[in-house]
Amino acid sequence: MENPDHQLPPNAKLVFKGVIFDVWQWEQKMFDGSTATFERLRRPDTAQVIPVVGDKILLQVQQQPNRLQPFPSLPGGRFDEGEEPLAAAKRELLEETGYVSDDWVLWRELRPVNKIIWTVHSFIAHNCRYQQPPHLDAGERIENKLVSFDELLALADDPAFYDKELAGLFAKIRFDPAANREFRDILFPRQ
Amino acid sequence: MENPDHQLPPNAKLVFKGVIFDVWQWEQKMFDGSTATFERLRRPDTAQVIPVVGDKILLQVQQQPNRLQPFPSLPGGRFDEGEEPLAAAKRELLEETGYVSDDWVLWRELRPVNKIIWTVHSFIAHNCRYQQPPHLDAGERIENKLVSFDELLALADDPAFYDKELAGLFAKIRFDPAANREFRDILFPRQ
Repeated sequence: MENPDHQLPPNAKLVFKGVIFDVWQWEQKMFDGSTATFERLRRPDTAQVIPVVGDKILLQVQQQPNRLQPFPSLPGGRFDEGEEPLAAAKRELLEETGYVSDDWVLWRELRPVNKIIWTVHSFIAHNCRYQQPPHLDAGERIENKLVSFDELLALADDPAFYDKELAGLFAKIRFDPAANREFRDILFPRQ
Repeated sequence: MENPDHQLPPNAKLVFKGVIFDVWQWEQKMFDGSTATFERLRRPDTAQVIPVVGDKILLQVQQQPNRLQPFPSLPGGRFDEGEEPLAAAKRELLEETGYVSDDWVLWRELRPVNKIIWTVHSFIAHNCRYQQPPHLDAGERIENKLVSFDELLALADDPAFYDKELAGLFAKIRFDPAANREFRDILFPRQ
């Protein structure tokens, strides 16, 4: 977490405030004593949830208004202003799937891209149960389906899956027996 | 390459022009007929090079002015205005390492992040040979070192390696025998 690409120095100035992305710039002293304008983006953190329902995982097939093709995804989305990671994860799971859980584990916190101050908080939600119909935004069309552990890992091969880093990790988990066992135990803890 | 998250619709407008990132917005019709402001970023494409020198790979240890810790990287960087992918790759390899190659293969073209129009063009440069001292920017401090195939793949485990997607792919290649053989053959083609 020491990577300064994911922090702003004290002299950074907000130069543009967008709908999602804010742009910050500062004058950076270079190795030869000259200066250059450095630029970083900041966007709201996002939650990502792997919901466990019995011996299955709840996966989504999403459509978005500017995308013709449906694409697979995990429940999740941007934090509201001031929202805590777990609260955001619970809210997104309920809104997008109608499921709730009382048994949450923070699995990973990842900063996917250099130059963008943005953390993805990935949670496992155990023992999910259906509570109410999903409440979707005007920009969401989502179908939920239950898949097996191996079908979840098969996202690694799906070019439409947006999270390229997670696809790589799933590819590793498919082939590395130790990583496979560890991930299976996180999803389906032995009593 | 059909993902519209990586394209701009005709009605998109440039609302901010940064040093690296440009911000575009447009009014998007939603599923219920309402509209919302959508936002995408555009940044210059980048080249990434895996340089093969004999039976080794040339890897870098970089420092940057705003980063305290050195971090491993592959040669590469942003395209100049109007520059072709292969030309950018050759230029970055020469500038950062002093090496040249006459035997280039385009390995992958990847769009790492949703909402950012940005392609990483990854090349393999075979039979690299040293030509001249590197020519570094004021914002670069780079050491080059030759590593083995397995040491390259070990980037998968290095939290300081910035390319999380490639780290995931290397993790897969370490454990998936078919992917391992294929990648080895791309780096070290059998005559």
